[in-house]
Amino acid sequence: MPRWVKEIRLAPPSLDDHSGDLDRLKRTLRQECGLERVCFDLETIQSLPAMIRDCAYKVRLTLFQDREKTFITRMDPAGSPEAVLGLAVDLGTTRYVLQLVDLETGAVLASAEHANPQIKIGPDILTRIHYAEQSGGAKELQAMLIQDLQAAVDKLCRENDYDRRRICNLALAGNTAMTHLFLGLDTRWLIREPYVPAANEPGLCRASEVGLDLGPLAAVYCFPSAGSYFGGDLFAGILYAGLDERQAISLLVDVGTNAEVVLGNRDWLIGCAGAAGPALEGGVSEIGRQAGPGVIDRVRIDAGSLEFEIRTISDLPPTGICGSGFIDLAAGLFLSGLLDFRGKLVPERCPERFVQRDGQDCLVLVEAADSGNGQALLVSQPEIDSLIRSKAAMYTILETLTASLGLGFEDVGRFFVAGTFGQYIDPESAISIGMLPDLPLELFQPLGNSSLGGATRLLQEPEALDIVSRTRDRMTYLELNVNQDFMNEFSAAKFLPHTDRDRFPSVIRKLERALKI
Amino acid sequence: MPRWVKEIRLAPPSLDDHSGDLDRLKRTLRQECGLERVCFDLETIQSLPAMIRDCAYKVRLTLFQDREKTFITRMDPAGSPEAVLGLAVDLGTTRYVLQLVDLETGAVLASAEHANPQIKIGPDILTRIHYAEQSGGAKELQAMLIQDLQAAVDKLCRENDYDRRRICNLALAGNTAMTHLFLGLDTRWLIREPYVPAANEPGLCRASEVGLDLGPLAAVYCFPSAGSYFGGDLFAGILYAGLDERQAISLLVDVGTNAEVVLGNRDWLIGCAGAAGPALEGGVSEIGRQAGPGVIDRVRIDAGSLEFEIRTISDLPPTGICGSGFIDLAAGLFLSGLLDFRGKLVPERCPERFVQRDGQDCLVLVEAADSGNGQALLVSQPEIDSLIRSKAAMYTILETLTASLGLGFEDVGRFFVAGTFGQYIDPESAISIGMLPDLPLELFQPLGNSSLGGATRLLQEPEALDIVSRTRDRMTYLELNVNQDFMNEFSAAKFLPHTDRDRFPSVIRKLERALKI
Repeated sequence: MPRWVKEIRLAPPSLDDHSGDLDRLKRTLRQECGLERVCFDLETIQSLPAMIRDCAYKVRLTLFQDREKTFITRMDPAGSPEAVLGLAVDLGTTRYVLQLVDLETGAVLASAEHANPQIKIGPDILTRIHYAEQSGGAKELQAMLIQDLQAAVDKLCRENDYDRRRICNLALAGNTAMTHLFLGLDTRWLIREPYVPAANEPGLCRASEVGLDLGPLAAVYCFPSAGSYFGGDLFAGILYAGLDERQAISLLVDVGTNAEVVLGNRDWLIGCAGAAGPALEGGVSEIGRQAGPGVIDRVRIDAGSLEFEIRTISDLPPTGICGSGFIDLAAGLFLSGLLDFRGKLVPERCPERFVQRDGQDCLVLVEAADSGNGQALLVSQPEIDSLIRSKAAMYTILETLTASLGLGFEDVGRFFVAGTFGQYIDPESAISIGMLPDLPLELFQPLGNSSLGGATRLLQEPEALDIVSRTRDRMTYLELNVNQDFMNEFSAAKFLPHTDRDRFPSVIRKLERALKI
Repeated sequence: MPRWVKEIRLAPPSLDDHSGDLDRLKRTLRQECGLERVCFDLETIQSLPAMIRDCAYKVRLTLFQDREKTFITRMDPAGSPEAVLGLAVDLGTTRYVLQLVDLETGAVLASAEHANPQIKIGPDILTRIHYAEQSGGAKELQAMLIQDLQAAVDKLCRENDYDRRRICNLALAGNTAMTHLFLGLDTRWLIREPYVPAANEPGLCRASEVGLDLGPLAAVYCFPSAGSYFGGDLFAGILYAGLDERQAISLLVDVGTNAEVVLGNRDWLIGCAGAAGPALEGGVSEIGRQAGPGVIDRVRIDAGSLEFEIRTISDLPPTGICGSGFIDLAAGLFLSGLLDFRGKLVPERCPERFVQRDGQDCLVLVEAADSGNGQALLVSQPEIDSLIRSKAAMYTILETLTASLGLGFEDVGRFFVAGTFGQYIDPESAISIGMLPDLPLELFQPLGNSSLGGATRLLQEPEALDIVSRTRDRMTYLELNVNQDFMNEFSAAKFLPHTDRDRFPSVIRKLERALKI
């Protein structure tokens, strides 16, 4: 497989061919590798004559490219024993993940995950953007992030015995705002009509330009965005899923506070993004947590005995519940008659499972005696309502996008679910509450961290660059106008699984079986 | 006339067109200016959103280009009253000349000339290249030059009331070695077989990469070279003369320690370079000087009375003689019978004009009483010999190049003589001693500082960039193999005007008339 690292043999100069060293190298890159317009910075040209003579005109070059330019990011004598490293970065609002890649073999060498240090300024992007508008705020936010990234890279390299100066290609996938904050770009206009990024395609820059100290010629590629709310993480996800390389129509969903959805195949692509609410990230209920040890990630309820079967991450006593656990819980409650089709809790069905708190009936998910923190884990009606709003938004977005092309869900051949959400969610539960459409379960495919996966693939395959550029050009961005139609759909989707029960035949069958209606 | 400065109107963003600011600008550059692949550095992208909104989507952009890339070198609101400046640099081994250019109007604003500070290390290039090979030597030579240039630019701007931070495009023309020393490139291989430059086309770089503090985005374009001995100054000269834009065949000669010659027209170009010796730069005789106040630049000798008519620069009492004066002197001596056809002085013809020094007959050019330093200005036979070697080399190079194409001098439609030499030399005198071929005088055209002229033209006309690239591609470099044929030609050319007198009919007629042979 072609890589970013290439070995080049130069014809040694002679009296008949005394073209300059740089000119000779460029000619070889053009003739042997089909590479035009390779940018050499002055420092590289300065070191060229000694280097190519030291290695007898056999050079190992590392390149990095965007659609407009090609950078030399490292130059060694051919056959150097030391690895040439790439770094894939998934830059999330809450967390970021680093992955070291061997650019010659494509092997993944090590990875690490850290909290985004900008959380200190604000957990959400909006707070950070407002902070960036204060004097010096943008610089401060960028410096905070870059320092943290640098320390994390240094640590990752140290722990795995690599030299960070051998990192020459960095591929970063993040949402549009995080990419802007990373590059120090003006975020002011992202959140004001008509929602214009400073750059959808910032392209390649030198790592030193953002203040990262990696290899001396290291370059950074940021995945492009399609708009303020449709970021590089999505394009990395599309790349990772191979969405636009298939004939079959696929849906890709990435759910966080925003739900970002892409529909398409190798001929066309359409995307949209909309607010799904924080319920799916474990941010709404009192016991809501991000996935972690002791957090409930799976719930089963026996419709007959109404017994709860609960699983926690690392099998520790439970202290909270994550998004996928909450969806499982809601599905279980619904299919066992503890939640009605309007999404209201039904305490009468099992009074011993309920207690009163602040005058409200609360479901006891875990008794105090069984919990990890000595307190009962309770779920209230408003928390359920919040989840239902999120699931309704999710479904409405999927429905609107698909319908905008005159398609139905039955036309979808594969359904990729990205992110942590996609990794832990049980599609069956999500269908049961009407969050995802009622498609055969085998069509659902969790992608895991597709943003990181896409960035890693770009470091492994130079052709991926062309795929991303093509995807970017072909992407139609659908502005989700929250009009009356959308609101009607949304209202209909706030029922379990939906006011139009015919859309969820498998759920209705299950419900009838469970409740013997 | 198109300039490097362009005013661009961007379509303001709307909900229907929320492409990013950078993407919008690139699209406009592509659609309105036909510019693809414009490189924006991160700093420019960072300042873009605020800037384009401040100026209501009307931007004044300054660009600079080589054949591979286009840089943005400045961005202002459209209609800014302040000038955008270019700096043309003729970087000679001995001296350099700066010229400030208004990039919007093309007007030349100011200029200055300075000694090349590397003279402290060695007056000639070879000494400097050997110095550069010592540890730290190359860096030291570069730093010495850059500091001096920076101070000279600062002074030029200060004296003419310009802000040096408004200089955004710098065009530099120098010989290959000086261009290498300016860029900090390795000069080691320039002087060793097979004489390979680090880069014949270093292309555009940021001024900050060479350590010059001009405008924050300022870029430097160095004219390309065709080899170690055929430099960017020649390509600037070809551009300035318009050599490759004419149908007629032209010769261009640039004489210094090396004679560089180009022959061609708009269909083909061939060039060569050869050592002409230092005689023509005023460096060989005891009284030889570079042109300056009190230096003799013209000599006439009346063949009948043998009276000398002497002109000095600034009309000061004479203290030395420059190259053009020395050629005049030799021509006058020859045409008045004081120098024979073998180039030997003839004291017998005018004994009172000669004195003995170190056992040799020396011609008294100026008596001690008439000189500017109280000493007689004397010319000895070895000094004449040196001049004759130089003139013979010059003629042989011209002859060899022309003959290599099966052409004769009669095929040459215009004869450009570049440099200080070309500005002061009297072609009639140069023909009289057989240094230049015996062509009608009106064909000779002095170019002045064609290297500076070419650099200035490149700042005035973006199209000049294409002309230089085309010239560079079409240039055939003739390696002057100093073989037996060349040596035979050289020996024949060491006579006055030549052993083959038929080649110089006008000189022979003059000689016959003067000496009434």
